[in-house]
Amino acid sequence: MPRQITAFSNPLVKQVRGLREKKNRRREGLFIAEGLRILTEAREAGFVPEILFYWEHAQHPLLEALIADIEAGGGDVIETTSDILHKLSGKDNPQTVLGVYRALDLSLDRIDRAAAPLWIVAQSLRDPGNLGTILRTGDAVGAGGLILVDDCVDPFSVEAVRATMGALFTQRIAAASWEDFVAWLRGGDGELIGTSLKATHDYQEPRYRKPAFILVGNEAQGLPEAYEAECDLLVKMPMLGKADSLNAAVATAVMAYEVINQWRRE
Amino acid sequence: MPRQITAFSNPLVKQVRGLREKKNRRREGLFIAEGLRILTEAREAGFVPEILFYWEHAQHPLLEALIADIEAGGGDVIETTSDILHKLSGKDNPQTVLGVYRALDLSLDRIDRAAAPLWIVAQSLRDPGNLGTILRTGDAVGAGGLILVDDCVDPFSVEAVRATMGALFTQRIAAASWEDFVAWLRGGDGELIGTSLKATHDYQEPRYRKPAFILVGNEAQGLPEAYEAECDLLVKMPMLGKADSLNAAVATAVMAYEVINQWRRE
Repeated sequence: MPRQITAFSNPLVKQVRGLREKKNRRREGLFIAEGLRILTEAREAGFVPEILFYWEHAQHPLLEALIADIEAGGGDVIETTSDILHKLSGKDNPQTVLGVYRALDLSLDRIDRAAAPLWIVAQSLRDPGNLGTILRTGDAVGAGGLILVDDCVDPFSVEAVRATMGALFTQRIAAASWEDFVAWLRGGDGELIGTSLKATHDYQEPRYRKPAFILVGNEAQGLPEAYEAECDLLVKMPMLGKADSLNAAVATAVMAYEVINQWRRE
Repeated sequence: MPRQITAFSNPLVKQVRGLREKKNRRREGLFIAEGLRILTEAREAGFVPEILFYWEHAQHPLLEALIADIEAGGGDVIETTSDILHKLSGKDNPQTVLGVYRALDLSLDRIDRAAAPLWIVAQSLRDPGNLGTILRTGDAVGAGGLILVDDCVDPFSVEAVRATMGALFTQRIAAASWEDFVAWLRGGDGELIGTSLKATHDYQEPRYRKPAFILVGNEAQGLPEAYEAECDLLVKMPMLGKADSLNAAVATAVMAYEVINQWRRE
């Protein structure tokens, strides 16, 4: 049975609120996702929160299904007030449900490259919105997941989780150093495809093979030269205006759709 | 000659700081852009700020060129401290230059559709990052500009200007009601292309004609049905995963690159 928490001073409220900070997420191995839509996507992908907070007046068949699954798994279901949901989420208009999940295992050896024809690799991606948008794009193009290389934004930050709109749970995520990633990549099949201003080949020229690994660089700096040198293919998109770069998530999507469009024609 | 302002209480500091709020921007007809790179893009596109604040220790040939242009036009050039730049920009690590510009005229009759083969139309776009990213994409694909329909985020907000990375000054921007936009559109050549989950045609099927108007809907709701009904072409992108939509800026970019890729092959 759900229990009620209505006191701001409740230790669990303090603990969960603390998960908005990276150091607490890391220490506790937990993160927050909000909203019935995202929590339902998670549930359908096999992820059930350890703790659920829901608004005392919320009513929805999907919420009932979620509660049943959590209780069946021995999780903690808590009915609460909008004030506490506001406190937990930090938003003026909080969602009516908030789940606390066990952090996903980000080790590279969990990635089975044969499971999908396309993977996205992001290097030092700093913006949580870009990370979320790239994961969401990955889902749309049938990618297997996202490999975060070097010092990327935390995929479990509240902002990143929000921006993924659920794709956090449907895409695999890994994190690794560049050296470890390259060693892993070269231990099997796969072409590494980078986009670069210095490339001589138009991105529509090559015939892309499976599995394809699309590499996107940091928002401000792009890819380091040594990383470009490691790419099997270095291509550029037409830039017809004054600007010399696209937003990182946009470039990833334009590249990924070209790759799958080629495969759709085969 | 540049003058110095070092006092927080200076009325101009208060006035410019106030431009972070929409009601003040509207009343004064001014907006802020930050960073030597964006201000230089603006200058190259013919836009010189009315007021320039720059950090007292900043030194750069492009800054000198900017100052010369502003002074030649009778503008106000102010040398100041990093504390005041921090106060003006609201950022912890403010840029070393900040320009105050006269708001651009957003009337639809300033748009010459014959000036470019491609235009982007956004309906009730709410996110300043998306607006900036779409303008930047517009620049990259050789679009003429962005037409904001209905209740969109203010393109002159500090966040939107930042996200455009200068494309605010190289792309035309207009704002109009849907009715006024449709009346204007139908007064000349042009196909209106919408993306929709309900579309039956793949986005790579049609042959796109010039001028093409790509219509993107609100981030959460997509396009209203009546707006979809007005489109000459309604197309969909392949969605291979669980998600039912792409980020608005990503969808715009994928669509726009398809259109220009077709034209590149002709």
